[in-house]
Amino acid sequence: MKKIRAGIFGGSGYGGSELLRILLQHPEVEISAVYANEHAGKPIGNVHKNLYGLTDLIFEPIPDDLSNLSLDVIFLALPHGHAMRLVKKIPEKIKIIDLSGDFRLNRAESYVQFYGWQHEAIELQKEFVYGLSETNRQLIKSCERVANPGCFATAVLLALAPLVREDLIDGHIVVDAKTGSSGSGAKPSEKTHHPERMNSFYAYKPFRHQHQPEIEQHLDEIGEYRSSMTFITQSMPVSRGIFACCYLETKYSISNIRETYEHFYQKDFFIRIVDESPDINWVKNTNFCDIAVHSNGKRVVVFSAIDNLVKGAAGQAVQNMNLMFGLDEREGLMLLGSRP
Amino acid sequence: MKKIRAGIFGGSGYGGSELLRILLQHPEVEISAVYANEHAGKPIGNVHKNLYGLTDLIFEPIPDDLSNLSLDVIFLALPHGHAMRLVKKIPEKIKIIDLSGDFRLNRAESYVQFYGWQHEAIELQKEFVYGLSETNRQLIKSCERVANPGCFATAVLLALAPLVREDLIDGHIVVDAKTGSSGSGAKPSEKTHHPERMNSFYAYKPFRHQHQPEIEQHLDEIGEYRSSMTFITQSMPVSRGIFACCYLETKYSISNIRETYEHFYQKDFFIRIVDESPDINWVKNTNFCDIAVHSNGKRVVVFSAIDNLVKGAAGQAVQNMNLMFGLDEREGLMLLGSRP
Amino acid sequence: MKKIRAGIFGGSGYGGSELLRILLQHPEVEISAVYANEHAGKPIGNVHKNLYGLTDLIFEPIPDDLSNLSLDVIFLALPHGHAMRLVKKIPEKIKIIDLSGDFRLNRAESYVQFYGWQHEAIELQKEFVYGLSETNRQLIKSCERVANPGCFATAVLLALAPLVREDLIDGHIVVDAKTGSSGSGAKPSEKTHHPERMNSFYAYKPFRHQHQPEIEQHLDEIGEYRSSMTFITQSMPVSRGIFACCYLETKYSISNIRETYEHFYQKDFFIRIVDESPDINWVKNTNFCDIAVHSNGKRVVVFSAIDNLVKGAAGQAVQNMNLMFGLDEREGLMLLGSRP
Amino acid sequence: MKKIRAGIFGGSGYGGSELLRILLQHPEVEISAVYANEHAGKPIGNVHKNLYGLTDLIFEPIPDDLSNLSLDVIFLALPHGHAMRLVKKIPEKIKIIDLSGDFRLNRAESYVQFYGWQHEAIELQKEFVYGLSETNRQLIKSCERVANPGCFATAVLLALAPLVREDLIDGHIVVDAKTGSSGSGAKPSEKTHHPERMNSFYAYKPFRHQHQPEIEQHLDEIGEYRSSMTFITQSMPVSRGIFACCYLETKYSISNIRETYEHFYQKDFFIRIVDESPDINWVKNTNFCDIAVHSNGKRVVVFSAIDNLVKGAAGQAVQNMNLMFGLDEREGLMLLGSRP
Repeated sequence: MKKIRAGIFGGSGYGGSELLRILLQHPEVEISAVYANEHAGKPIGNVHKNLYGLTDLIFEPIPDDLSNLSLDVIFLALPHGHAMRLVKKIPEKIKIIDLSGDFRLNRAESYVQFYGWQHEAIELQKEFVYGLSETNRQLIKSCERVANPGCFATAVLLALAPLVREDLIDGHIVVDAKTGSSGSGAKPSEKTHHPERMNSFYAYKPFRHQHQPEIEQHLDEIGEYRSSMTFITQSMPVSRGIFACCYLETKYSISNIRETYEHFYQKDFFIRIVDESPDINWVKNTNFCDIAVHSNGKRVVVFSAIDNLVKGAAGQAVQNMNLMFGLDEREGLMLLGSRP
Repeated sequence: MKKIRAGIFGGSGYGGSELLRILLQHPEVEISAVYANEHAGKPIGNVHKNLYGLTDLIFEPIPDDLSNLSLDVIFLALPHGHAMRLVKKIPEKIKIIDLSGDFRLNRAESYVQFYGWQHEAIELQKEFVYGLSETNRQLIKSCERVANPGCFATAVLLALAPLVREDLIDGHIVVDAKTGSSGSGAKPSEKTHHPERMNSFYAYKPFRHQHQPEIEQHLDEIGEYRSSMTFITQSMPVSRGIFACCYLETKYSISNIRETYEHFYQKDFFIRIVDESPDINWVKNTNFCDIAVHSNGKRVVVFSAIDNLVKGAAGQAVQNMNLMFGLDEREGLMLLGSRP
Repeated sequence: MKKIRAGIFGGSGYGGSELLRILLQHPEVEISAVYANEHAGKPIGNVHKNLYGLTDLIFEPIPDDLSNLSLDVIFLALPHGHAMRLVKKIPEKIKIIDLSGDFRLNRAESYVQFYGWQHEAIELQKEFVYGLSETNRQLIKSCERVANPGCFATAVLLALAPLVREDLIDGHIVVDAKTGSSGSGAKPSEKTHHPERMNSFYAYKPFRHQHQPEIEQHLDEIGEYRSSMTFITQSMPVSRGIFACCYLETKYSISNIRETYEHFYQKDFFIRIVDESPDINWVKNTNFCDIAVHSNGKRVVVFSAIDNLVKGAAGQAVQNMNLMFGLDEREGLMLLGSRP
Repeated sequence: MKKIRAGIFGGSGYGGSELLRILLQHPEVEISAVYANEHAGKPIGNVHKNLYGLTDLIFEPIPDDLSNLSLDVIFLALPHGHAMRLVKKIPEKIKIIDLSGDFRLNRAESYVQFYGWQHEAIELQKEFVYGLSETNRQLIKSCERVANPGCFATAVLLALAPLVREDLIDGHIVVDAKTGSSGSGAKPSEKTHHPERMNSFYAYKPFRHQHQPEIEQHLDEIGEYRSSMTFITQSMPVSRGIFACCYLETKYSISNIRETYEHFYQKDFFIRIVDESPDINWVKNTNFCDIAVHSNGKRVVVFSAIDNLVKGAAGQAVQNMNLMFGLDEREGLMLLGSRP
């Protein structure tokens, strides 16, 4: 059987790095090309030194003409704002999985408000299915183009989905979410300067994070989302991981709320319902989302933990590719975490 | 002028360690004795290696008879449950500052519920003033015994005090608070085992943390506290620091809520109102509490950051000692943080 | 074809944890039993939370009678001193791979000097082949019992082997080696207490580390080792990794010493010769040993980096198992590192 | 008595940051001006957020004309290559302490070889005294201009000085030195990008580090330095600290080599001779250099640990200022480390 020919645009960032780590070992995929203007001409193993000696692939410049690409699927792992220009140039027969935020929001006004510039191809957005694998599996299976969810959005949506689907939430939701430094990408910046970051913990973009409209839009697809939300993001002094706490009130006191979660996710391999609390350490480098839920009367807190670069980016992208090509969604994603 | 003769009970833990670091340089204090049964007989600099060569003090065993101690003030830096047995043995003329949780809660039922054992001296609790320096300054100045606040409680109370005093809060408060590993003390344990902790972030004791009744009790002393509270604690992979996010709704939309905070704390040297967000990195090793506040309509989030061992323990204890002895409260506490 | 039935003794430590991570995905292995007295009766995923939901295995108590075990291979991942008592009880038909130091040294006097107690089964030591896969491959392939090398020993021996084999070293060798905190094992201790370890770097056991006689003994098997050695170990504030610097003088100036290394290791998949310097970050979670070598006249420095728990323990143990059972030595060990 | 009027050139880097932290509390110093072109006009507390609220000083642009500065001492904390152009413009009556490498090397050829560009003012170099306070105290006391030592050089020279002074070393010296990430300065770069650095340990500039000629030049001033040296630098995943291991052979076996060190440094407050090993954790934020020495026959290893930004930069600069102005060298430098 022929392998899926995959192309990666933006192969030199952390999203691209993790796509390579996963796809190089995916039994049904052949990586046909990896594009990265900045490193064009360099062997991949010289940039992603973890992969030194493990592939002969070389970064290529992004071609101007994309009409003749012999690819079955393209992963777009470029900074926000690039995908919306590239997508129109990609032949329809090639499936697309976009890891950026360009095709997640269905309203141009939200895009410009949260990303800071005009959307140039909002008319294409409706071709994209929102790629939260667990809640949108059927749509993903039959679509050609996927907008892969943001890292925070993945953690928060998976934490809230069971309660929204059952319409159990009453009133305002508070989401307090924390990310590791790799969420800022592979480019050095003041906020990721090691001497300071290693001892830091701080909040950023209060009330202004671009994942909030993404979360609320998809909650409204999962169920009838009638709440409002305060969404606050913070930076942890760790390389990988997202840890989200969702605070809410249920319409009535639910005696064993954990069962609601276990039932909702009973067929979802990558969701694990755990005791007390998940820990980013147990999901690092994996595609798992670990969730714990606790209630005190009608007050509920849901904790969820993912690896921002795997379930929050490249891993979920491959999970979606598996769904789009009719494969077992676990294919290539049996990445075991490690202790310690 | 004679110096204040201070004794430290429990000198080998992190609370004791930081008391020593501060008091050794306090111009009005002479450390008369440092008690620590576990290390009795050892020079202090052999246990707290940061202090090697800086003091000739030697750990002494805690004496059975405390009636003849020639001390002006005693700092109790022992594990929870020890102070309640010791206090009755300490002569009344010696001032006491207890860093444990033993004399913070005024209800015996709360104590047994959150600490797990019966209080043996609840009748003495009313002799203790709650030592949040900024909100209780006048009472502390004239008292003989102080219950020094918990680290989480300090960060949360300072974040909420201005709004509670003005009775601005409407409805439920969510507090999402994170601590560094030194909050677990100097004794190694599974949760502080470096190979795992360095990549971890997790929640613990959901709805059961002992600082919740302490916070709510003192909020009711600050103003008319009519809210309920969800209080969740988490562990950060960093040595020092507490970062608290307080989520609440105000009774009406406050246009410049920052001014409320600046006004409330205008005379408080150790409280700094900052832009965007505080960062635990800028308060580490210091007695500062940095606070930022943001509103979105009636929704408000308050961020506060302290060093759990300084403003959250030893530093505030010395600040309280300064108040009790009529000194400038900054004496000995001009500890500058460092960058990086 | 029937799978190899493997048993793990000491399954709850970090060596056991990593053996489980690897063997659970090894296509030719079936884990028949995992023994750990401390956690007997508990599901493995409750102790190694990274494996939660990925195996139904349960820790069993170590049986007194080992004569009836239906196993093809036993991995001994117990603290030093346990294997020497167990080995005599294991039937000869079961192959053994011992990850402890019990059967590495061929002289009883060295053992007592460096481990601190008498060897109780030194007569069995000669049945063990030293399991440095790259230098002892032929012996390992045909043996029944392997003494798996120490983590430091692995990094240092692989760094020195090419020069010792060619008899190029003149005079004294200095080895300055650093380990991550997981090298201390899964039991919490003062030296691995996170609040202090995260900012620490220190040396330990100067001139007394037990890996020195192990290194020198095997160097003498690799070539004619005529040097003496200073071997100093240090602790890094990181979870995983060994970084070794070997300083030596060659008999004559070697113009391109890197070629010597590339030639020596040309058929060794798990050894990668890199530019400038290896980095523990690029080998973490993998079975690779990255090496760089530089010369300045006759002065040479060799840098090597491994993951102490993989190439330095469980990974190499599986590599040796593969050799012992006639499999491709990479089987189950295509563990890709990740960036970041 | 009038305070010393100090000016800091390059106040926004980490050297400047630490000079500010120290000098703001120095009882004999008044900071008259802080220059930093990049941040000119900004309050210092907005850039060094640890100092927020603690000073009203504002960064000023570096003036073109330096002839009218009303200063007693200038600290030059600029990148390498800037001081050599500025010094000629500074009036002779103002004392200078240069923290860069510009005036440490007395040979122009060494400078161009190790720094990569021509020295433009080598004729001024002889006016500078090398500022290793402990070994050059008398010269520093009577000089006007000090070349403050490099961070690695400080740790290594203090480790080797007692043996070189007594002419005890025979043959080649190996120095294996490690630095924290703050040694790379306040500007973000790939090597200090948190997601990767936090798990990294690697070597850099093998045989090419610019501190080697500085070390060897001053060893020859301390005693009759007849050895050669291999000097290798490495990066630790920690913010602050230098840990150096010096390996050498003594001319004869010295029974209690520790006494040699204790004797040599008996009057040096900032040098502490410790057991087993120093730890960067116990000297962080302080001006101490902790040293341990061990011998095995004629083989010796010396460990030294400093905070690269304090004893390795700003702290030693202030120590030298104290000497130049006839003050107690500890003035303003009683910075206690903290545990944890």
